[in-house]
Amino acid sequence: MISEKSQLESAPFYTYLKKTAGMSDDEILRVSADLKRSKIEKGSLLLAKGAICNYSFFVEKGLLRSYMLDEAGKEHVIQFAPENWFIVDRSSVYFNDASESYIEAIEDTEVVLIGEDFICKANETSPAFRRFNDKLLHNHIRHMQNRINLLLGATAEVRYLSFIEMYPDLLLRVPQWMIASYLGITPESLSRVRKELAHKNFKST
Amino acid sequence: MISEKSQLESAPFYTYLKKTAGMSDDEILRVSADLKRSKIEKGSLLLAKGAICNYSFFVEKGLLRSYMLDEAGKEHVIQFAPENWFIVDRSSVYFNDASESYIEAIEDTEVVLIGEDFICKANETSPAFRRFNDKLLHNHIRHMQNRINLLLGATAEVRYLSFIEMYPDLLLRVPQWMIASYLGITPESLSRVRKELAHKNFKST
Repeated sequence: MISEKSQLESAPFYTYLKKTAGMSDDEILRVSADLKRSKIEKGSLLLAKGAICNYSFFVEKGLLRSYMLDEAGKEHVIQFAPENWFIVDRSSVYFNDASESYIEAIEDTEVVLIGEDFICKANETSPAFRRFNDKLLHNHIRHMQNRINLLLGATAEVRYLSFIEMYPDLLLRVPQWMIASYLGITPESLSRVRKELAHKNFKST
Repeated sequence: MISEKSQLESAPFYTYLKKTAGMSDDEILRVSADLKRSKIEKGSLLLAKGAICNYSFFVEKGLLRSYMLDEAGKEHVIQFAPENWFIVDRSSVYFNDASESYIEAIEDTEVVLIGEDFICKANETSPAFRRFNDKLLHNHIRHMQNRINLLLGATAEVRYLSFIEMYPDLLLRVPQWMIASYLGITPESLSRVRKELAHKNFKST
């Protein structure tokens, strides 16, 4: 029989809090008791536009994406979240706005639901978590700024190379049209860029 | 003769810390002693690409903008910062990366230089500042996410209307080409949008 404690310790979020956020076993046990988990089937929505988002989601297994619809009803991918990533509609969770975005499971997915109460408790309990959480926010801002820079000024090729660097293991898990949507280019441009890169790599070997 | 204290209290940053961040006079006096100010002439750079950015800049008077150059050497405006705004190259100031961006004075400008030490001291001294600073970060993320959404999926008109909402007093202070650059559209598109909006407003009155 597996005890609750050892079950918890085998969870990816436990490992993440320990290895990445630098929390001690004791600290993790003190703050994790009320954490909820959820399973989302491939193709299902975890959040829909207009709803209030009460949680950040930590992906333990599977793959989520968030997207929005423009005025013409066209989808634009905002973010992908494979294992060990967080995904959230931040305006909704921090400012109680109705959500602008959708969060959908690209694969069967298991998430941990992270509420404001968890963050508060972890901040109070663990100085390491507080520093980590602060760094995480700044890093998030850094990535968003980088994305704005890419959308404003980079070629399709540079955007695609940056995508590969950020999400190295997603190329085979995500349909091409979603990658093109994330990059803000047409599927045709993505296809052209991929052919050109394959050609360059072929020549350089 | 004006004492140092009353000079400080007449400063816009003092008012900002008191009114917006919710700090008490006593807390502000305790943390502000070492703050530095700087004057930048119109057209001069406060930060150049490749430098390390050691400060966030709070604009007390005047107007700054940050921009980057793409591979073809074309400028892309990242942000404007009129009075009571902060501007910074965040990757550089928080992660010690060489700056990717330039910060330039559009008008003669006076700034307060906010170092990491000030933030730490203010966080320790004032619970109100700590909450405010946290909210500021989340709000920054919300605005960046909104900008990404606009760049991915919005028409030139929607982008322009969102600009007016965000920077209501900048239309007459900033050259049109810089606004177009910020919006990620051509100056011709901006000119067309402005004409169409003027026409709509004319008809609706």
